[in-house]
This record gives sequence, structure tokens and C-alpha cells, in this order.
Amino acid sequence: MTATEGPAYRRVAEQLRDKIHSGELAAGARLPSLPDLGRKFGVSADVARQAIAVLRSDGLVETRQGSGAFIRSFARIVRSSPARLARSQWGAGRPIQDHDTGQRLRTADVTVDEVPAPDEVAAALGVAPGKPLVARSRRFLIDDRPVQLSTSYYVPELVRDTRIVFTDAGPGGSYARLAEAGLEPVRFRERVEARLPDAAERQGLSMSTASGRVLEVTRLAFIADGRCVEFNRMILDAEVYVLEYDFPA
Amino acid sequence: MTATEGPAYRRVAEQLRDKIHSGELAAGARLPSLPDLGRKFGVSADVARQAIAVLRSDGLVETRQGSGAFIRSFARIVRSSPARLARSQWGAGRPIQDHDTGQRLRTADVTVDEVPAPDEVAAALGVAPGKPLVARSRRFLIDDRPVQLSTSYYVPELVRDTRIVFTDAGPGGSYARLAEAGLEPVRFRERVEARLPDAAERQGLSMSTASGRVLEVTRLAFIADGRCVEFNRMILDAEVYVLEYDFPA
Repeated sequence: MTATEGPAYRRVAEQLRDKIHSGELAAGARLPSLPDLGRKFGVSADVARQAIAVLRSDGLVETRQGSGAFIRSFARIVRSSPARLARSQWGAGRPIQDHDTGQRLRTADVTVDEVPAPDEVAAALGVAPGKPLVARSRRFLIDDRPVQLSTSYYVPELVRDTRIVFTDAGPGGSYARLAEAGLEPVRFRERVEARLPDAAERQGLSMSTASGRVLEVTRLAFIADGRCVEFNRMILDAEVYVLEYDFPA
Repeated sequence: MTATEGPAYRRVAEQLRDKIHSGELAAGARLPSLPDLGRKFGVSADVARQAIAVLRSDGLVETRQGSGAFIRSFARIVRSSPARLARSQWGAGRPIQDHDTGQRLRTADVTVDEVPAPDEVAAALGVAPGKPLVARSRRFLIDDRPVQLSTSYYVPELVRDTRIVFTDAGPGGSYARLAEAGLEPVRFRERVEARLPDAAERQGLSMSTASGRVLEVTRLAFIADGRCVEFNRMILDAEVYVLEYDFPA
């Protein structure tokens, strides 16, 4: 898709984005200088620079002091909320992750277990600590790189008759299944922290350096009567993800 | 404030929270064992454990494997959005930070400068790169510990007749002043990344260890006609902050 309207720098940014997504501009490639880029697109070097700023903000390009702009070798993943978690997304049978990673190759290892409720999870779900819960654990890989570990906890009585207890939860995933079971999430709360990964997380995410960090995102999903029906603990490689939140004043 | 309604574990958590805030339970202190805590509050050890889980989630308590629960020596700061940025907060003349840190001692070093617009800021504010902008930089300290660096950029023509150009922006801060100038923010976008601090950030936040990380939060403030009127880059000590976002499905 190529835009022909809007400010010139946005038009240039979209054309470059198309070339990156098509592979015409490959990972690691150096972009032409700003004057050359401007000439190529019939704009000034200043406009070219603004276009690069947009691509950098989108995680597609990185600039290195004194040596120009490069296509990132692993494009960052921007998670935009609430759009990615909107009912219009999962309600239409689309995986949430489609919103984040578009056409990039994505795989997930899924396991479903019964586990005793950790204290923090029990408090959120309003059950006794240690009560057996359904735990859906996933390990997401993008373009063959592990980027995220995620475990969602549910009260068994609420989900045992749904596909949430299978490794393939079906179109639209767990939120679509909860909605079908009369437990439609209407509100989410996410808590974000940055911390060191533990050994299991480091291994799960194939993190090579000891200095790596993860973003820990804890999501609670609430239904209309105020009950929390899902506790989801996500561990994201902090090198890969950008979290974006839109909200009213 | 002591709650007398709701589940028992919440009541216990609120009473403990009162004791922490009053200093009766001091930083670093070890909490009694769960059975002792239960006896003290007339609840079971399980309920006491759930209460501790709440305090841990609020950043007031940390649990150490095998040795119990301790009052954190520097309580984490939970930033809850959109509540902290609600018009009802700054519109009533309250600093946003009151929402985060309550009664804790807070100071800020403020400087106001004119700086050439960095590319990323220029793209967001819709001005030419290099255009002179008003930059309000702040360094926040909580209980004498530097916790956050923040720089907000504004188009001079829009704010030069407001108190935003003074080090004390007045009651409710910049958003209250923008509203008075007919530029009331109605929507915010925040982008969150975790990364290594640069040398200046490390120094500004007095970070001692080379392994420290910061949360970089970039906020755009939009007015009703869709214009972005503020670009705010915040650098938060990742050891200190928890970011919380509530949003609809």
C-alpha cells in the first residue's frame, strides 16, 4: 500500500516501509544519504530526514552517529494498546499478534497444564492460593527468534468446556472463547516492569548476554461485573518490544 | 484510611499499608510470619498471605525465598494511567506526581531552555527539524533519590505567553496551562521501551551499577483537532517504577 496523500515526509516514509517489507531494502542495508534520498523521492534532505525519523520511531531503521541510517536486522515489534486488544480484533477471529507483527513469520509453542494458583494470581482471580488453575503457556517466535514467554491462568470451572484448555484455542483465541462462554472481557489492566530475567526466562528467550533485560507485562482481563477472568504474565525480550498505549485525558 | 468492608485480605492489606505509610512498619523491617500475622489480624495464614501478595503487587513489600516478607527500603512507584493524567487531576490544580507518590517527599530541578528541534520531536510536533522549541527539563527526586529525568518540548508560539516557560508552571502544571491557552489535551500516547542508560542519564539518576536499566517513556499530548502540542521524553529508573495502564476492550 502506497500513500499519495498527507505530508511529504509521511509519503516518503510509507514508500520506504513498502521497500523494507518487500525485502527490496534488506536487513542490515545502509540507506542512501539524506540528499540522495531526497533526490530519489523528489523532496528536500530535511523531508527525507523527517521520513527516517518516522521509520526509526516504528522500529524499522536505526541511525548510527556519523555513519547514517540502516535497516534494523531484526525489526522491533510495536504493541499498540488498546487497538491490539480491541474486541473488533479477537471478536472477528483474528489473533491479537496479527496486530503486532503483520505478515512476519510467527510460531508459538503452547502447553496447557493444571497448576496450583500462585498467591499473586489467586488474589487477582479471587480464589484461594493453591487452588488448581488452568495454565496456558506460550513461547512466541518471530522470524525464528524467541521473543516472548506468556502464561495465562484461568479458573477451571469457567473454561473447562471451552477450547481454552486445548493447545489451539481457535479463531480469535482465548478472549473470543471467553466471550462465547458469557465472560466477555470489557476492560484490561496491564502492569509493566523492566527487570533481569531469571535463568528459565533467559533460556526460553535464548538471551545470549548477561546484560539482557526483559519487560514483564502482567495483564488482568475484567468482565462487565468487575470479575477478573484471566491473569496473564508475559515476559518480553526488551530488545525487541516497544509498548504503546493510547488513552484519553 | 482504614477499610472495614470487602474481602478480609484487602482489609488486612489496607491496615498494613497504613502502618507502612505511618512509619510504624519501617523500611527494611521483616513482617511477622504468616501464622503470626493471621493471629494478629484475626484471619487465617492463607488470608495473611493473600494480603502480602497485594502489598507486593503495590511495591510496598518484597518477599525473599525462605526468609519471609520485608518492607521495601525504597517503595516502588506505581504510575497508573489514564487516572494520573486525567483532566480531573491537573484540571483541579493538582500535580500529576501527587497521584504517583502521595505524601512522599518530592523535589524537582527544573530548567527551561530554547533548543533546536530534534528530528523525532519535529516530526511529532509537525515543525521543521532544527526549529527552536521550548524545552522544559526536570529531574525528579523522591525521598532524596533521583528517579526520573523528563524533557517536554513545545512550539514557542503556542506557549510563550503561558507559565510553561517559567520554572514553576503553576497549579496543575503544563496541561492546566495548555488548557487555559485553548490547547487542552484530550488524548495521550505513551511509548515504553527498556534500554541501557547513556552516560548523562546514568549520572542524572545516580545509577551505581553498570547493569542498571531505564524505562524510556515517550508521551505525545493531542488536542481535539488532532494536533500534538507536547512531546515529553521521560527516563525512569527501572528499579523504581511500575507502569500501569487501564483500557477498554
